[in-house]
Amino acid sequence: MANLITKTTELAMTVTLSYVRKGDVAVDATCGGGYDTAALARAVGPEGRVYAFDIQKKALIMTESRLRSHGISNVRLIRESFVSMSSHIAENSAAAVVFNLGYLPGGDHSITTTAETTAEGLEAALRTIRPGGIVTVVMYDGHEAGAEEKKMVLEWAEALDQSRYHAAYVSMINQEKNPPEILWITKKGRE
Amino acid sequence: MANLITKTTELAMTVTLSYVRKGDVAVDATCGGGYDTAALARAVGPEGRVYAFDIQKKALIMTESRLRSHGISNVRLIRESFVSMSSHIAENSAAAVVFNLGYLPGGDHSITTTAETTAEGLEAALRTIRPGGIVTVVMYDGHEAGAEEKKMVLEWAEALDQSRYHAAYVSMINQEKNPPEILWITKKGRE
Repeated sequence: MANLITKTTELAMTVTLSYVRKGDVAVDATCGGGYDTAALARAVGPEGRVYAFDIQKKALIMTESRLRSHGISNVRLIRESFVSMSSHIAENSAAAVVFNLGYLPGGDHSITTTAETTAEGLEAALRTIRPGGIVTVVMYDGHEAGAEEKKMVLEWAEALDQSRYHAAYVSMINQEKNPPEILWITKKGRE
Repeated sequence: MANLITKTTELAMTVTLSYVRKGDVAVDATCGGGYDTAALARAVGPEGRVYAFDIQKKALIMTESRLRSHGISNVRLIRESFVSMSSHIAENSAAAVVFNLGYLPGGDHSITTTAETTAEGLEAALRTIRPGGIVTVVMYDGHEAGAEEKKMVLEWAEALDQSRYHAAYVSMINQEKNPPEILWITKKGRE
């Protein structure tokens, strides 16, 4: 049995997948090793579609390999930054957009998401989800850029118009070793 | 499809129920209208048991009626404060203990949980859950005592020994109208 409170990425995805139905469009903004891509692809099913972004070739290769080994073929892998998701996916159409900020596990630690591009990507994600959809952000502040990035993300989320968006922040309030934390945002309106 | 981020009590219970298996013991520390009691009772199944506490007769009557209408018979209703759970349930035995702080919906608003008894109840809950179990606290600060109580609960949780407990706090960071928030705590150790 998963202990969701200590397994942050599982908690993030458990909630995310509750927003996804068969036939939906979903987005993995940072496909990394492809775990979330595969989970989203299974959730939307063959009649749905997942768009998976990463700027690193290594991530796309890892993800492609994972998808092939699971017989998953409803994913479009795109070697671009998540900031360009709006040019691939219509506004108000996706059930979920998932971000894992920070660096690629096992990859080059100098290549990380940054506060600047992340802000732009989050704005794109809010446009991309449909009313009743979710943006999920898993934040790692174990590295210096991550701490700065998390601060920016939370300030941005706190300022979101409460009549249009609902932001929930999961903080690990008694842990000093910077475990990952979660931000969920849903778009209000007809669901 | 439930929008879990905006439906705080559903989010709280979705995560809670992922910690509960058939045959388990679970505790509803504040049974209120009996919604959570019934959900826990279904999750532990006929071979499990739920202990449900409330100091208000009205709450127990409402809960008993709900349980009867759902054909649920594995609940022990106890008209005592949750601070006395330790005298009914063995230490390290429960899969989950759930608190809904504040007043009984539709009941006497002058009867609320208070910071003092809540602190005692939370300590009892931590003793009661097994390693790998969860304490779930839904906090309402729409009333004055609730704001004070929430502050106390969070300060208490922040001070929990991180090697023994993991506390996760869900705050609704862009909402000004005091929606309910969640505190989850799990006990570390063999699961």
